[in-house]
Amino acid sequence: MKLHILGCHAATPSLKGNPTSQVLDIRNHIFLIDCGEGTQVQLRKQKIKFTRINHIFISHLHGDHFFGLPGLLSTFQLLGREKELHVYGPSGLKEVIISILKLGNSRTNYPLIFHELKESSSGLIFENEKVEVRTIPLNHRIYTNGFLFSEKTKERTLNIEAVAKYKVDKAFFKNIKKGKDVRLDSGEVISNTLLTFDPPSPKSYAYCSDTAFELSIVPLIHNADLLYHEATFLSREAHLAAKTKHSTAMEAAKIAKEAGVKRLLLGHFSTRYKQKKAFLDEASVIFPEVDLAEDGKVLEI
Amino acid sequence: MKLHILGCHAATPSLKGNPTSQVLDIRNHIFLIDCGEGTQVQLRKQKIKFTRINHIFISHLHGDHFFGLPGLLSTFQLLGREKELHVYGPSGLKEVIISILKLGNSRTNYPLIFHELKESSSGLIFENEKVEVRTIPLNHRIYTNGFLFSEKTKERTLNIEAVAKYKVDKAFFKNIKKGKDVRLDSGEVISNTLLTFDPPSPKSYAYCSDTAFELSIVPLIHNADLLYHEATFLSREAHLAAKTKHSTAMEAAKIAKEAGVKRLLLGHFSTRYKQKKAFLDEASVIFPEVDLAEDGKVLEI
Repeated sequence: MKLHILGCHAATPSLKGNPTSQVLDIRNHIFLIDCGEGTQVQLRKQKIKFTRINHIFISHLHGDHFFGLPGLLSTFQLLGREKELHVYGPSGLKEVIISILKLGNSRTNYPLIFHELKESSSGLIFENEKVEVRTIPLNHRIYTNGFLFSEKTKERTLNIEAVAKYKVDKAFFKNIKKGKDVRLDSGEVISNTLLTFDPPSPKSYAYCSDTAFELSIVPLIHNADLLYHEATFLSREAHLAAKTKHSTAMEAAKIAKEAGVKRLLLGHFSTRYKQKKAFLDEASVIFPEVDLAEDGKVLEI
Repeated sequence: MKLHILGCHAATPSLKGNPTSQVLDIRNHIFLIDCGEGTQVQLRKQKIKFTRINHIFISHLHGDHFFGLPGLLSTFQLLGREKELHVYGPSGLKEVIISILKLGNSRTNYPLIFHELKESSSGLIFENEKVEVRTIPLNHRIYTNGFLFSEKTKERTLNIEAVAKYKVDKAFFKNIKKGKDVRLDSGEVISNTLLTFDPPSPKSYAYCSDTAFELSIVPLIHNADLLYHEATFLSREAHLAAKTKHSTAMEAAKIAKEAGVKRLLLGHFSTRYKQKKAFLDEASVIFPEVDLAEDGKVLEI
């Protein structure tokens, strides 16, 4: 799993930072998470092929998280896209996107499928044979979801020496990887545990932006391999965080600690802070495995 | 008069070029003309103060000419703007912008005043004591206007030596600059032509994008000091220009020649062309006073 940070700054695009957008490369699926203004150019900078994007997840409808979407959808059209595109986001998104495209007397030649969200509890919104995505209801000024991206348990790993020893026919390999025992021609049953190793443990990535400090998300993101949690403010501006329903670096660290995640990545920094190191200092007191997002950064999970 | 090119490329924002946006600085008024995605960042690059922008002109509702507008309006809000903002653009723009802001549960604290355009003939849409702006109906796939920005005739220049010679009191200067004669205490009437020089001739800038070759605009832009005319294609792609209702460099040059403008600036280049010199070569055969737009370029008019 690989995470590309396209933008991680709050509020307004500037010369120094792009608004929120990320790309998660998970088991060869490319998921675009939020789409602030300028996302198209950031995708090009990171050399991410537009044709690989088939699923876009929008957390909420503040401009810094979706104003890049109409342009991206139009560009797909100009590039001659024919494949389905799925967009997951709050109810209301479809109507406004369609209105914008209609103003230009254009509509997409490719199937543009909206999955509008309005539930206040966590739900499974995407699933295939390798990956699932669940919403993480967040606490912000408007309806907002984070997203939990989880690999499904992988197939068991074949123990090549063991299958050779028991002379297991190749025809059984598919079922063995799925955990099945094998009955040999002799009638003897070989337990799966003798023929396979445990698969690599499935990874998960939790994206939580924008949100106030919200303990109810802890069970939903429990044990995540990486948690991206917004930290718009430092604790000395906790009053602003409370007023605007954002989090401080310390609050993000507390969530990471409570949830027992492996690593924490902070982002959505307010433009008021010239130096970002204070975010690291503040969070690492509570949760040492913390890092700062940065436009263009790529993390292996 | 000074023209800042913020973006001059067709269709999609890329690492190499921004979609259309320009700033015209005319008699200390700042007019933003079109607002493709990324305009905010381009404004910052050019160090144009956001507070100086009070009038935005949108030619048409294709994304590469207005997808930067919702973000810019939101940024004005975040920056605590209180002054009126006037937006001139095709009918339908207001509804979609208001819908977008409503999705984010936000509205502007500053008065946001839309002047929706739907006339098919040229009209005066802005006027103050120094400047006027008229629409230039263009011929594109959807309803589109260019804009003619004209200085009003300036005051006559006082001939300091002459007013001293005739011992004209300062109290008369204001009227003299407006062209009035002066009656001295002696009863003698001094003709204005003896007391003043002709004012510098008023300048005009014609912005024409996007459009097919359209001779009907010629009388509207007659004698303009600068004509920006789109040249999406070269003549070898004239069939594409015709199909998409864009112009070739040669067609833009023909319009410039017919209209007797002083200079021509080409822009809105298709991303298919890596080298722009061919646009210059093609146009200069017909109209030698031609230049190419470039993101970040600043022209004195």
